Formats: sequence, C-alpha cells, structure tokens
Amino acid sequence: MPFGKITILGVGLIGASFGLAVRKEGLCAHIAGFGRNEENLKKAKERGIIDSYGLDPSAASEGADLVMLSTPVGNFLELVRRCAGSFKKGAVVTDAGSVKGGLVREIDALMPSGVHYVGGHPIAGSDRSGIDSANAELFRNAKCIVTPTPDSDAGAIRTVTAMWNALGSQVVTMGPEAHDRVFAAVSHLPHLLAYAMINTVADVDPSYLEFGGQGFRDMTRIAASSPEIWRDICLMNRDNILELILVLQEKLDSLSRYLRAADSVSLEKEMERARTLREGIGQG
Amino acid sequence: MPFGKITILGVGLIGASFGLAVRKEGLCAHIAGFGRNEENLKKAKERGIIDSYGLDPSAASEGADLVMLSTPVGNFLELVRRCAGSFKKGAVVTDAGSVKGGLVREIDALMPSGVHYVGGHPIAGSDRSGIDSANAELFRNAKCIVTPTPDSDAGAIRTVTAMWNALGSQVVTMGPEAHDRVFAAVSHLPHLLAYAMINTVADVDPSYLEFGGQGFRDMTRIAASSPEIWRDICLMNRDNILELILVLQEKLDSLSRYLRAADSVSLEKEMERARTLREGIGQG
Repeated sequence: MPFGKITILGVGLIGASFGLAVRKEGLCAHIAGFGRNEENLKKAKERGIIDSYGLDPSAASEGADLVMLSTPVGNFLELVRRCAGSFKKGAVVTDAGSVKGGLVREIDALMPSGVHYVGGHPIAGSDRSGIDSANAELFRNAKCIVTPTPDSDAGAIRTVTAMWNALGSQVVTMGPEAHDRVFAAVSHLPHLLAYAMINTVADVDPSYLEFGGQGFRDMTRIAASSPEIWRDICLMNRDNILELILVLQEKLDSLSRYLRAADSVSLEKEMERARTLREGIGQG
Repeated sequence: MPFGKITILGVGLIGASFGLAVRKEGLCAHIAGFGRNEENLKKAKERGIIDSYGLDPSAASEGADLVMLSTPVGNFLELVRRCAGSFKKGAVVTDAGSVKGGLVREIDALMPSGVHYVGGHPIAGSDRSGIDSANAELFRNAKCIVTPTPDSDAGAIRTVTAMWNALGSQVVTMGPEAHDRVFAAVSHLPHLLAYAMINTVADVDPSYLEFGGQGFRDMTRIAASSPEIWRDICLMNRDNILELILVLQEKLDSLSRYLRAADSVSLEKEMERARTLREGIGQG
C-alpha cells in the first residue's frame, strides 16, 4: 500500500470522491478528513469515505504521508499556514484546485524543510457539489493536470503523478501559469458566461426561462455550480479571465455587426468554424 | 384517421421525426416528402418515414390536408410561393420554424382563399441534424409553441393544436412577436454565445480545447448545430437578438468590474442569482 495515511482537507465532491477512489484502489491504510462542518464529516465517516476526522486541520494532518487540499481554492493558503508545522517530514502535499499560478509559489514557500508540494487539478468537476454526489470513479478517464515548477521535488512529482494514474486519470504536466491560461479559457470564462447568460434572460423576463429547451439547459448547467467555489477561482485567476472577456466581447461585437449588416456569409463562416472546432472535441 | 395526406417540406431531423411520430400515432394515411436531396428522400422512404417523395414541392403538396414546413426557416417564403397554387381548399399549412414574427404575416398573405396557416415551433431541436437522428418520440413531453394571430382561422388553430397534443407535446399559445422575444433569449442568443465561446478559445489557442471538461462540453454542445439553419434564424430575429447582446455585454462589463475591483461580494451575488434561477428549471 503506497500510503500509510492520507489527509483530505475539505471533504466535498472532490475530496470525498478522492477518498472513495483511493480506498477502492487500495492506495492507503488510513484516510483522515478535515472540514468545517462536523455533520458532513460524520456522514463521510459513516459512508466509509474517511476513517477519522477532525475540526482542526493541523491535528488531522499529523503523520500523513500525503495531504490533499480540496476545500475552495481561496482557503488553501490559510489552511497550509495553519497546518505546515504539523506536516511530517517526507510528506507530499498536493491539491485539487482549479487555479495554480502564483498560488503554487506561495504554497511552496510555506513548506517546511523536507515536505514537498506539487499542485494538481483533476478535470472532473460538476455542477453538483457535496459528498452526496461523490463517486469513486469521478477521476477515471479524466485528465488530471499536474503543475510542478522548476523547483519542485522530483520524488514528489513522481508520487503525485503515480497516484492520479492509479486512480485512472490521464496525467498532463503543465507549468502553473500555463495551466491558468488554459483553464481561464475552457473553464473559468465558460462558468462566468453561463452565469451571465441566465441572468441576462432573467433581466429581460424571468418567465422566459421555462421555455428553454435542451440546448439552453446544457449551456447553462454549470450556472448551478457553487458560487463560493467559483467566486474564489475567478478572483484568483482574474487577469487571465479579464483578457478573455475582452476577446469574447470582440466576438460578440463582430456577431452584432454581421447581424446588423445582414451579412449571412460572415455569420455562417463564424458558425461553421465553431461547429468544426466543437465536433473536433467529440459529441459528449 | 384525422388526415388523409400530410406533406412534409424538408425531411431533416424535425421533418423526419414529425413523419415518424405522425405514423406512430396513426394520424395519417399517406405521408409525402419534399427535399432538395433525392438520396435523403430515398432513405426516408426506405425507413418508412414517408410514403412518397418528389423534388417539386408544389407537386408533393397537391391534395395534402396538412402541409408541414420543416426546411431551414430562411426557405419558407420561397417554398410557400412555389406551392401556394397547389394547396387544396381546406388544407392547413403549418411549420416547425424557430422564428415567427413578421414571417407569420408574410406566409399568411400568401395563402390562397380557403387555405389556412398557423405557425408552430416544437421545442425539440438538437445539436444533431438530418434523418439519421430522427426519432418518433422527439416531441413527446416537449413544449410546442403555436403562434396564431388575431386573423388566424379558429379551425386551423384547433387542428394544429390537436395534432401536437396527439404527438405528446404540451402546446403553449403565444403571439408571433412574443414568441420571437422569448426565443431570442432562451435559444437564439445562447446559440450565438456557444459559437462565440468556442471561437474565443480558438482565437487564443486552439490547443486549449482538448482540456475542456464536461462543463465546457455541455456549454458548447449547441455550437455543433447546423450553421445553415442557425444563420437563417439569427438573421430573421436579429432585432431581438441585437438588443439581448447589449444586455449580455452589460452583464460581462459588470463581471469585469467586479473582477478588477476584487469585489467578491457582488461577484458571488451574481453567481448566487444565476444558480437559483438555473436550479428553478430543474437539473436536466
């Protein structure tokens, strides 16, 4: 068994699914959980997601070979500050956060000597949240981005990579800044856009919402995602997102121009381009 | 059997599904099809979707008790102009187009004496198109908007309404202009936005697309919709869409402001509002 003890800091959808997956693959003898909500932790223990829990992250992290940060990403730094003193020598710290960039350097800087952090981001979110939606197979066949820096410990990179591989994920390695540019485009902006789309309809007339067909439901599904989680993500990656909003606004300006000019050729060209690109990533 | 002959002008996803549904419910003795592509019509006949077909819409419409317009909406007027002379007295003409508004009056004006048009719009599209995706159950439990005007024939309204009810749809009656305002918001703008979103990513770096998770795939699924169909729809409803793009741009401006100011309270409020609205229309 590769790990004696794993501590999961934040037992929500991702943390609980991670616990179930680790247990299913037999990667760990003891799984400890930390969270703010004791009822939730109790439920997680009853369901066999964790073996023990505590409301003190520092105590929960003691003796862990691997510590997984899976709270909302805005809480990582404070959490690491509270726990760093109790990390055991040789421990590997990782996370499942959707933002990396500067945060990776800040977490790195908090690591005691002999404790190594390597960032991770399993591409396996959902519009659902909480342990009721947890699923041992959440990470199987999903990409997981691992974001080492040139200073990362080679052994810790190997440990984190091997762990995600063992859970069935396809690991892609990427620098923290590159990660944030990619996910601003394919995740953070789309979430903001789903929020904006549904609020636009409601601004005009909320009664229109009941006429949305499957296309509208698909397009706005992620607007049901947790505001607490997504507020943090968007703020922490705001520079990349702000740039992308400008690009999107230019696209909308072009579409408006084509509509006003009844320029069906340019309009169809934009649509054809998008269709080809969308078909390129499969029908799912 | 309510209808002796039904003619379907345009045997794509919607026309073919309509044929299958009408046949399954035993609403019609003979179903004729018209289309531009003889291979497609042959396939439709082989699969029992239609009983006969022709490449001349006027000949195909002769003797029909009900004529269904289900080509791309941009072709409706030309098609009605070509066929109007061969519509039989007492025939009901309807359509499955996604735009109504002025088009309804223009089609109305082309009806010969004793032939009555009432518009319809089954909310049952898909990112797929063509008869290979046709499905006799496409309209079951879906809303179908029927868009009479004050001048519409009461008998024709009843016929069209009863027909969609017989196919399992929930009929909602709405004026043509109201229809176009509603569907600009919940269908036409979302389609444009899906196209814009995916093209935005590609403008920045097309290689990012492979990192899109389920949320990105859901949100951009409708970008795979037929450009020919959606070009027409967007142009024909452009005034409503242009107004909505402005509302959406304002929403994006606000989100940008919140991000720049690190205003987490306002950001979370927008997200919370969208989440509540999205949850109000169900998880599907």
